[in-house]
Amino acid sequence: MLELRKDPVQKRWVIIASDRPVPQTEHRVSEEQRRGREHCPFCTGSEAQTPREVLRVPVAAGPEPEPWAVRVVPNRFPALVSEGKLKKSGVGMYDRMTGVGAHEVIIETPQHDVAFSELPVEQVEKVLWAYRSRTEELSRDPRIKYVLVFKNNGRVAGASLEHPHSQLIATPVVPRRVHEELSGAESYFTYKERCVYCDILSQELATRVRVCAESPHFALLTPFAARFPYEMVLLPKEHQADFAQTGVGQLADLARMLRDACRAMRSQLDDPPYNFMVHTAPVHHTARDYYHWHIEIIPRLSRIAGFEWGSGFYINPMPPEEAARRLAEAIAAGNP
Amino acid sequence: MLELRKDPVQKRWVIIASDRPVPQTEHRVSEEQRRGREHCPFCTGSEAQTPREVLRVPVAAGPEPEPWAVRVVPNRFPALVSEGKLKKSGVGMYDRMTGVGAHEVIIETPQHDVAFSELPVEQVEKVLWAYRSRTEELSRDPRIKYVLVFKNNGRVAGASLEHPHSQLIATPVVPRRVHEELSGAESYFTYKERCVYCDILSQELATRVRVCAESPHFALLTPFAARFPYEMVLLPKEHQADFAQTGVGQLADLARMLRDACRAMRSQLDDPPYNFMVHTAPVHHTARDYYHWHIEIIPRLSRIAGFEWGSGFYINPMPPEEAARRLAEAIAAGNP
Repeated sequence: MLELRKDPVQKRWVIIASDRPVPQTEHRVSEEQRRGREHCPFCTGSEAQTPREVLRVPVAAGPEPEPWAVRVVPNRFPALVSEGKLKKSGVGMYDRMTGVGAHEVIIETPQHDVAFSELPVEQVEKVLWAYRSRTEELSRDPRIKYVLVFKNNGRVAGASLEHPHSQLIATPVVPRRVHEELSGAESYFTYKERCVYCDILSQELATRVRVCAESPHFALLTPFAARFPYEMVLLPKEHQADFAQTGVGQLADLARMLRDACRAMRSQLDDPPYNFMVHTAPVHHTARDYYHWHIEIIPRLSRIAGFEWGSGFYINPMPPEEAARRLAEAIAAGNP
Repeated sequence: MLELRKDPVQKRWVIIASDRPVPQTEHRVSEEQRRGREHCPFCTGSEAQTPREVLRVPVAAGPEPEPWAVRVVPNRFPALVSEGKLKKSGVGMYDRMTGVGAHEVIIETPQHDVAFSELPVEQVEKVLWAYRSRTEELSRDPRIKYVLVFKNNGRVAGASLEHPHSQLIATPVVPRRVHEELSGAESYFTYKERCVYCDILSQELATRVRVCAESPHFALLTPFAARFPYEMVLLPKEHQADFAQTGVGQLADLARMLRDACRAMRSQLDDPPYNFMVHTAPVHHTARDYYHWHIEIIPRLSRIAGFEWGSGFYINPMPPEEAARRLAEAIAAGNP
């Protein structure tokens, strides 16, 4: 059963996906339960073990599909599926809808034992190209309101397989966190007639106290109100609402900046688990003037505890200015 | 340095607390780093190791302070402190204020090696009384807008000391999650002229598919749109906006229900880490008609991954109806 349900007070949606395995209590999971390379469905030669692929990026440009560099396949335990009609209904005072959408896995490399941050920039660019291509394709489905691309790196950050991969979920509603950003950006635009992210960029690139790295098209910053130690945000310097609008030159530049950010976490923070997620404007949304796509990057150093859950109020022991200084040093050291 | 900073897009506040220790990468923390009972500052005899206590609940009623049953002390690494003026200022386009408030620890028992769920109901009642008493006291400070009581049980859930304890943070702004609940509850009230939580209670107690337990004054439910497997919510059956309004008979009843909920998680889920947090109306708020206090209880079985962070959209593999059935069975078995 796949069903979307809405909380009547907080108005957020959850996916009740009873076909997915219920997680074991984390502190009881043993090392044996991790799947090693012998049984890895993402390695070259095991292509038949995944659901049928929806995209293949070959190593060499041209019509030859072998050898592959990046593959995109449906998730084996999807949170949402593309079959079926989008049906909304009520249960007394509650609201629900059918679990229509998509849930895909981006296999980032045929190599099993390599960190994302150690991939060549050209490989990261192919991964980003796959993100963009799938986002465009799924945006054509009229039932889809949002496409979210994200990466869970390391088991603590939610990854259940070792082989480098990221994921994509296409949803029939705009997710709450994105809605909050849209509404914050819209109210700023209404007041100032300027994009809030463009203003952040211009202040940050002038003061430079929270700049980790800068490239022709992108800036990597620590947010002024960072929730977590070493949290980063990667933004295009020119206003752009959609990740899918990125041009080819921009994508190569982005690949280097994203790789550098992940590599800096690895060297500066002793290879921590981390997440990144692409925040882009919703499909067919009118937010083009005031929304500005970006990638949030969060090393998972601290646990989320009761206070954070209960309040949405975060305690960060690391001033973002200090984090930016250290990350900038690590990035400079990695690019001599 | 303690400073509150506001995110200009999402409008949430974070506390930058650079005096607190930066957490180690979780997967590198070794067992030795856990402090055992020999060095525990919360045990009887080590009272001098904590900051000066702000409340002591003695074992026996009366003027005799020894032996103590529950102590409340300031946190040694406070996220907010009571000294100083509340000062708001701007930094270019950004907003910040001084980190004024309170951060206290409720030591739930003098015993080191006992689970909260195994405490006698009378002891849990004393803990709840301490919550209520501190909430009332801190609400008198005109700088305080909110008092949040929460418990992190187990290291995965954020606890850094083994000895049973909970915490309280008093903040000079209403936290974002509470603000969301207030605004959702207010819009429902504007539309229906009824409290949304009262309506949830009446539907749930009629259909009974998500009821885990019921007592004279309280109902323990799994939410219709539960974010996590076995997530629970404990609500007073009669409309009540403030936790601090609870009467003596109600508090004893609440103690049993909360203990039973924690005990059911322990038996049903193999002693998982968990959090609970008390959501009550803000201090001096006009939400009395439409807000309804409650306790959120969340076993920490699954990790929060990139999708959840990026979207605020949760995937729950356990239908709350099935979770309620299992929890109700465990609670019934524990109360023969």
